[in-house]
Amino acid sequence: MSLKAERISELTVNRLSVYLRCLDELAAQGEATVSSQALAERFSLNSAQIRKDLAYFGEFGIRGLGYNIDLLRTHLTQILGLDAPRRVGVIGAGNLGTALANYDGFARSNFAVVSLFDTDPAKIGGVVSGQIPINDFANFAAVVSASSIDIAAIAVPARVAASVLDAVVEAGIKGVLNFAPIRLRAPAGVKIKHVDLLVSLESLSYFLARGASLAKLDDDTDPTSI
Amino acid sequence: MSLKAERISELTVNRLSVYLRCLDELAAQGEATVSSQALAERFSLNSAQIRKDLAYFGEFGIRGLGYNIDLLRTHLTQILGLDAPRRVGVIGAGNLGTALANYDGFARSNFAVVSLFDTDPAKIGGVVSGQIPINDFANFAAVVSASSIDIAAIAVPARVAASVLDAVVEAGIKGVLNFAPIRLRAPAGVKIKHVDLLVSLESLSYFLARGASLAKLDDDTDPTSI
Repeated sequence: MSLKAERISELTVNRLSVYLRCLDELAAQGEATVSSQALAERFSLNSAQIRKDLAYFGEFGIRGLGYNIDLLRTHLTQILGLDAPRRVGVIGAGNLGTALANYDGFARSNFAVVSLFDTDPAKIGGVVSGQIPINDFANFAAVVSASSIDIAAIAVPARVAASVLDAVVEAGIKGVLNFAPIRLRAPAGVKIKHVDLLVSLESLSYFLARGASLAKLDDDTDPTSI
Repeated sequence: MSLKAERISELTVNRLSVYLRCLDELAAQGEATVSSQALAERFSLNSAQIRKDLAYFGEFGIRGLGYNIDLLRTHLTQILGLDAPRRVGVIGAGNLGTALANYDGFARSNFAVVSLFDTDPAKIGGVVSGQIPINDFANFAAVVSASSIDIAAIAVPARVAASVLDAVVEAGIKGVLNFAPIRLRAPAGVKIKHVDLLVSLESLSYFLARGASLAKLDDDTDPTSI
């Protein structure tokens, strides 16, 4: 596989994740091969974009035959690093943190929420979703180490998010998913993904304000955007 | 304003939303003007991308002086349709729906969650966040009409999301934010934004699997990606 990782954009990576989801669905339906055109039509994607994104990582398709679905799934799984389990710690055991712990989208993935963290004595010691403990955030670094947590999800109010990030970085975490409505800056070597609900809503607002153009704009939709 | 709306991509729209957030922060700090370079450096954005995105909508900057922050905020607010209030109905009064109703990122926005909906008799009639009622989903269309709801957020399990979307579309809603871990297809004229947590996590996984390339990849980061 000719991996030119230094030229791969974050959007390409997001799209690989979407492609993998689509291929999983086709495989579950018993399909063995799919062309970039068929994949695009079926899931409202862009076929040229699919070919371009996959070309960064090698030659997966055969002209006229398309992609072998199982083979491409295996490649994408490896490229995305999904062949290893990922253990997620959720900071903030409020509604959002609890929703993350209960999220049914993780069930068939390699991601598992292994601990919640909070500072509220009334919550510490509790259990969510049947088995996920709520630990004291004061012990964050120790639990991260003992439980081999490699991703932190920040689900706390905006005003405390920056100090939570400091503790997360100090504990050696390299991947952070931030739900707090504030842009956090990561030090070098740490990757933060922001889940900003307001951006999604504002984008909807744009489309609502321009209802007439919707059909055309849909052609241009990026499948990974939220 | 020369509005070439038919060529504006969803990613550009997402970025306008991010720019507006950044300008709000600069304005709050008393800044009056900012160059695309300074804006990019300050918020880890891409200056060429900023100029290109804004150029779709007109000439906002003055060479050598940069952008007038207040003027650009006004323009972006209009472009994004944020000068009108948007009323959001949240379907599913579980942890995620409740978290959305309590989301503190909406406080200074034009978005307000005005109703939750559920089918659980034990939840219907309740109130969240002090004032937001939980209505019976069976009455969705009537409440949408009475409460002038124009955006629906779907926060239900994947297995019922498609039937919920049918009811949402039937009620005349044109903008949908979907949190269920399933790709829903909207009929023409309806815009769906997917908030897919697995895509964010899988992207983090990619970066974790390639720790050494992180610094370079960060340069290429799209500010709007989740």
